[in-house]
Amino acid sequence: MSFEAWVAVHTPRVNAALDQLCPADGSRLREAMRYSLLAGGKRLRPLLCIAAAEAVGSNIEHVLPAACALEMIHTFSLIHDDLPAMDDDDLRRGLPTCHVKYGEALAILAGDALQALAFELTAEYPQLLRLLAHACGQMCTGQAEDIAAEGKPISLSQLKMIHANKTGALLKASVVSGGLIVNAPPTQLSALETYGAQMGVAFQIVDDILDLTGDDATLGKPAGSDLKHDKATYPKLVGLEESKRLARAAEQEALTALEIFGESAEPLREIARYIVERNT
Amino acid sequence: MSFEAWVAVHTPRVNAALDQLCPADGSRLREAMRYSLLAGGKRLRPLLCIAAAEAVGSNIEHVLPAACALEMIHTFSLIHDDLPAMDDDDLRRGLPTCHVKYGEALAILAGDALQALAFELTAEYPQLLRLLAHACGQMCTGQAEDIAAEGKPISLSQLKMIHANKTGALLKASVVSGGLIVNAPPTQLSALETYGAQMGVAFQIVDDILDLTGDDATLGKPAGSDLKHDKATYPKLVGLEESKRLARAAEQEALTALEIFGESAEPLREIARYIVERNT
Repeated sequence: MSFEAWVAVHTPRVNAALDQLCPADGSRLREAMRYSLLAGGKRLRPLLCIAAAEAVGSNIEHVLPAACALEMIHTFSLIHDDLPAMDDDDLRRGLPTCHVKYGEALAILAGDALQALAFELTAEYPQLLRLLAHACGQMCTGQAEDIAAEGKPISLSQLKMIHANKTGALLKASVVSGGLIVNAPPTQLSALETYGAQMGVAFQIVDDILDLTGDDATLGKPAGSDLKHDKATYPKLVGLEESKRLARAAEQEALTALEIFGESAEPLREIARYIVERNT
Repeated sequence: MSFEAWVAVHTPRVNAALDQLCPADGSRLREAMRYSLLAGGKRLRPLLCIAAAEAVGSNIEHVLPAACALEMIHTFSLIHDDLPAMDDDDLRRGLPTCHVKYGEALAILAGDALQALAFELTAEYPQLLRLLAHACGQMCTGQAEDIAAEGKPISLSQLKMIHANKTGALLKASVVSGGLIVNAPPTQLSALETYGAQMGVAFQIVDDILDLTGDDATLGKPAGSDLKHDKATYPKLVGLEESKRLARAAEQEALTALEIFGESAEPLREIARYIVERNT
């Protein structure tokens, strides 16, 4: 199956599961949750989770609730990050952000409730749940550090630390959770962890590059947001060319970690290529 | 042991456990979390959890993480409810609210991170975690309904529904979780559930009464907040005397449910009396 075909099979399955696991109940709160959750998006975290489970090769039937929980946590963080008190963004996934559409109070509550629902869905899997909850905490830490660093000069190692928390932890957790659900042995889990960590790094570098070189339509959110908030980025700290080189180096490390897997890890490999090479 | 002595034994244990389970790490985010979490408060939810475990009579050693998770969830909801976009309150537990002290961005993130930490702590107990996560979702629903109802005429049954979600669900979960941790048999769990539900009702009625008749110093938060927000309350809908009668009726139902327990349920009985009779 080509990667495009693989994505075309799994993305609708994720979307259908999200729709089913967070059904409309007539309340405005649920409407706001669904507005942001079902607004499209690449479903990168669920796809990473499914691809990791597939790499291990077992029955991936039980992976969907975890995959959906990851997307719910991601969406909750986007809703809160977009709030006026945080990044104050009006556009997300090509649509008005949750607080623009539903007001700040409902946006805050929709984020809170999506976090709770994500944990409710993964209650069966203590190890997975601990991983997700810990990643959530890191995400909050990273966002707090990111806001605190606005307008201040920071070092590359500080930037790496902020991103490892803010976006890296959940991306890594997405990959590892796929392995956990299908009971991957320790060597495979460890390989998935390395892959996930490197994907986190690559993803953020490319995100920084795109914010500089992309346009609103491609991104589905306002380009130049980092400049607007005077945020430290990879291109700003090390230049555009070195940023691209670092992203490719992370991709390479991620691919090397996958060498212990056979063809079953092809979707994970393709995701790595897609993330890094789409625009660099 | 007198009830005062019981409270004096368990409250410091809860506070010490909260301090230990959410330790300072040098970050501003953690500082904001600890500021609100360790700001005092009656620790009603942890005490309900401990008292319920004690009623069942087993070893209550393992109850503290769950008791702390309940307080973290409660504190997260207070931080978010106090935000300018929600109830816009400046005073809580006698201190400036989290966003007044640390700014809105950090207050939102501190709430988010406290929710995540609560679930991390209870990952060992799937049944408990599902209960807590579900109660969190109900809390968000209730708060959204409460805000939507501001300034509008609502019926007593609508008011009951809002409160059952907003405050009742977590209070009930506090009691039930104590029973779950010590493996209470179904009949006892069911009695705890009835007690918890009635305590939720009683608590909210008394809270409404106190908002009307209390002062800032006694409440640790601004009195008259319900009037300010033009919120429906029990005294407003049924009058002060009928509100007091309803609170006492709920207390009576709660105490009746406890009849299957012996002396071990004395702390639960005392909490019921304390909640209802302190000011009615």
